[in-house]
Amino acid sequence: MPADGVRPGVRLLEAVSEAARNTDISVKSAGCLGNCRRGISVAMLRPGGWSYLFGELEETSADDILAGAALFATSSDGFMPFGARPEALKRGLIARIPTFDHLKDLP
Amino acid sequence: MPADGVRPGVRLLEAVSEAARNTDISVKSAGCLGNCRRGISVAMLRPGGWSYLFGELEETSADDILAGAALFATSSDGFMPFGARPEALKRGLIARIPTFDHLKDLP
Repeated sequence: MPADGVRPGVRLLEAVSEAARNTDISVKSAGCLGNCRRGISVAMLRPGGWSYLFGELEETSADDILAGAALFATSSDGFMPFGARPEALKRGLIARIPTFDHLKDLP
Repeated sequence: MPADGVRPGVRLLEAVSEAARNTDISVKSAGCLGNCRRGISVAMLRPGGWSYLFGELEETSADDILAGAALFATSSDGFMPFGARPEALKRGLIARIPTFDHLKDLP
């Protein structure tokens, strides 16, 4: 906990919220994502896509998060392309999870 | 890769599918969950609940997975209770992610 009492994850939330203003990207504070061992965590969801979780993020990761979210939002297959992703979202990938919509299509 | 060419995750899938027969639990093979560094992985989803991802599972984890899934399916708040969970699903928790339904309710 830093001296001013504001956790790094809260600072990142504020920075991402600010960066997402005037975009179609919605930013929410979601509570515990069960990933404490791997630093600041962010989940990304989109209609028709799998859900992603990233960790090992920094207070300064807001621009990378927004860039990844925009990439995810505009992908044609519902996945976030790996190659074009900011480095922080390559090394910080924790998991991706299908949604019920996808499970319906699986045998 | 074992000598018989059947991956441990495939064996686990078969064992979980068999264990789930005659239950309301649906078992699907979902492809890459982005969690290769932490062993065999299983995602669990339920209507009205968050989504969970577990790793570090073994070929022999089918009973633990089924017990956790039943606990999750019957919880009243949509979360999988921690204390009653099989040990494999305590130490193997990778992440939990809210769904769109939950995000709607967040400020």
